[in-house]
Amino acid sequence: MNNLKAIFLNCTLKESPTKSNTDALIQKAVDEYEKLGIESTVIRVVDYNVATGISSDEGNGDQWPEIYKQVLASNILVIATPIWFGVRGSVCQKVMERLSGGYDEADPETGQFPLYGKVGACIVTGNEDGAHDVCSNTLFNLTHIGCTIAPNSDSYWVGEAGPGPSYLEIGQKSVYANKTVRYLAHNTAWMANLLSNNPIPTNLKELEADAKQASK
Amino acid sequence: MNNLKAIFLNCTLKESPTKSNTDALIQKAVDEYEKLGIESTVIRVVDYNVATGISSDEGNGDQWPEIYKQVLASNILVIATPIWFGVRGSVCQKVMERLSGGYDEADPETGQFPLYGKVGACIVTGNEDGAHDVCSNTLFNLTHIGCTIAPNSDSYWVGEAGPGPSYLEIGQKSVYANKTVRYLAHNTAWMANLLSNNPIPTNLKELEADAKQASK
Amino acid sequence: MNNLKAIFLNCTLKESPTKSNTDALIQKAVDEYEKLGIESTVIRVVDYNVATGISSDEGNGDQWPEIYKQVLASNILVIATPIWFGVRGSVCQKVMERLSGGYDEADPETGQFPLYGKVGACIVTGNEDGAHDVCSNTLFNLTHIGCTIAPNSDSYWVGEAGPGPSYLEIGQKSVYANKTVRYLAHNTAWMANLLSNNPIPTNLKELEADAKQASK
Amino acid sequence: MNNLKAIFLNCTLKESPTKSNTDALIQKAVDEYEKLGIESTVIRVVDYNVATGISSDEGNGDQWPEIYKQVLASNILVIATPIWFGVRGSVCQKVMERLSGGYDEADPETGQFPLYGKVGACIVTGNEDGAHDVCSNTLFNLTHIGCTIAPNSDSYWVGEAGPGPSYLEIGQKSVYANKTVRYLAHNTAWMANLLSNNPIPTNLKELEADAKQASK
Repeated sequence: MNNLKAIFLNCTLKESPTKSNTDALIQKAVDEYEKLGIESTVIRVVDYNVATGISSDEGNGDQWPEIYKQVLASNILVIATPIWFGVRGSVCQKVMERLSGGYDEADPETGQFPLYGKVGACIVTGNEDGAHDVCSNTLFNLTHIGCTIAPNSDSYWVGEAGPGPSYLEIGQKSVYANKTVRYLAHNTAWMANLLSNNPIPTNLKELEADAKQASK
Repeated sequence: MNNLKAIFLNCTLKESPTKSNTDALIQKAVDEYEKLGIESTVIRVVDYNVATGISSDEGNGDQWPEIYKQVLASNILVIATPIWFGVRGSVCQKVMERLSGGYDEADPETGQFPLYGKVGACIVTGNEDGAHDVCSNTLFNLTHIGCTIAPNSDSYWVGEAGPGPSYLEIGQKSVYANKTVRYLAHNTAWMANLLSNNPIPTNLKELEADAKQASK
Repeated sequence: MNNLKAIFLNCTLKESPTKSNTDALIQKAVDEYEKLGIESTVIRVVDYNVATGISSDEGNGDQWPEIYKQVLASNILVIATPIWFGVRGSVCQKVMERLSGGYDEADPETGQFPLYGKVGACIVTGNEDGAHDVCSNTLFNLTHIGCTIAPNSDSYWVGEAGPGPSYLEIGQKSVYANKTVRYLAHNTAWMANLLSNNPIPTNLKELEADAKQASK
Repeated sequence: MNNLKAIFLNCTLKESPTKSNTDALIQKAVDEYEKLGIESTVIRVVDYNVATGISSDEGNGDQWPEIYKQVLASNILVIATPIWFGVRGSVCQKVMERLSGGYDEADPETGQFPLYGKVGACIVTGNEDGAHDVCSNTLFNLTHIGCTIAPNSDSYWVGEAGPGPSYLEIGQKSVYANKTVRYLAHNTAWMANLLSNNPIPTNLKELEADAKQASK
């Protein structure tokens, strides 16, 4: 699996150097990727000046374009986020809004959205509840902008119901999280390799033209 | 793409022969698959005696085992459902509960869940709202039991906010639904063919053993 | 708070006499209501022949009408359900579909839906995740058919991420669940008493007529 | 209903003076409140410097404290937001995260969270889908920090499936949105008046102490 790259967008609300629970689970995936010969880049989004908006470049010092360039240069995109109030954090939601800006930049020949051929995954940490909802929405969004989702491509840790200790405090020995992060790394790595050798051929522009004809 | 099979589980609440909006959108996917040489089977779940439960066979005349056998014999699994109160219908939820029964029937060598190697998709119709939530949850659940999700593998139609006419009444000329059902068919067909030639090699049992070791 | 009644619809998938985790948490709310002088009725829906559908009476031995009659005779309606695959169970979804049948039976003078003046609440048990999503959807649905939601009107228990022991096995000593079930009981009881003395006066029919005029 | 105040937090992503679809639907609620003698304040959150975080004051010029002060001075809190990718917008999510900071500021005697006694509501606009999910999560979150939700306290507009015109372009004549915004205004106004005359008496601190005792 030479030359495959993974990018992690860590959507913690906390700026560096504060410790991030989400980063701790990310590092486990990074370790797995390293064993598989895949190079990882971890970006802590809140350390950058990422503007609120839905275009690819909002101007005025917006640093999303430089992050997005790295997303486009990767084979695997892992959205990593904490849960707040049962929902993906605001930084993650902002990232998804910015990624949706790519809709308008489809390939001129095939109409494929910019992330076609990439593999998506999701990592989530939270104190108590909401991981399924966060992963569901996030992986689904990624398929809409072109990503493929391999089986078992999410890894999360949440504690028991109610406020309580965090991943860094009590989650690192979770067999479930340690197992799923391995599934995630192995399945996404294999799928990324497969897709890099087998580009998706679908011509969305032709299909859209056909749909318009059929809708008359 | 010879010998590829698609199965649609139509989770409408209405028994035959009442017209099903969801079936009308399914038929468009069936037409696309036919052009691609893929054979389709459509099962209207509510016409069968499918028991409530979370095992693969609940006994007492439960007909889920005969449906599940056909799921296992297919390359593409399309869950199709109406939306009620913003959530996937109760028949769909029952189907997902029954599919989760397969968790306990992993491959003895690799530990892979029974749907590994299959491709999942989702079709939704509703009067007004909730398609994203239904597709998100359903496609995510499918990845947990082994399915791969290709890009743009959902097709749905919903009308404007509030009660209103149904898909059969005003949705059939929707360019969006007609476009996305084509994306769905082409991407899932291509992915199913790719996976049938390239079985996913991941050994979940070994990874789980490694995770247990790491969690000590 | 004389003469106030609470009804619990236990939407476990398991028929009596199998033990129900959800029932165990329900009983704690029943105990609190008893201290407050409120009479509770607990209905285990799966023990009844409740038809799939969206009307108030589906005929053919459908027992929903007798359950619904008891809902209408109560001041507090508590929907109690397990989580399956991150979503409310299929029996719960069926109950919500049947409750939506009441939409068509609005008060002829005020247009108020049948549950206006009642107080809604939600109780959830699950192994690991999804309680926020289940409570959110369920309480929101209840407001659409007329219920008022007092603050802190949900109580749930879920364990750590991944498969694991159930509420009956390890949840009963959860301070969080024991605290929230008390909040739920006290706030819903007080609100039910307040609403029984202060019927909601809003005339939905007049407001709808005004809206139609404004939409011309 | 003298002296009742409503505050709307408009969570559009677009800064003033760009037109906001969400603001257009807010204005309809403002008109209704005016007829009922209720004074409205509309705050466009993105025009303020609201920090990312989960405390009540993040310092460094954070303007959330001045917004929050107005929330505390109101009887009705309406969260208004667009939908992006099926989920509430990032500005809305940030607002909910900041509101959760109030958890730590419970009343020293009763333990009630700061929004006890207030009435919550939700207004949503989007092109096509996701309103139920946004309202469900948002209203549920509001109940956790003390708000009461009256029946029919959400108003939203979304168009048909897929990209399409916005509320300002085609939604303003929607009978559904015009009807529900009236239900919202009348029910929340009546409930706010009722609660201002009948403060919720529940002592959460005593109940928590009792729960701790019961959990031993």
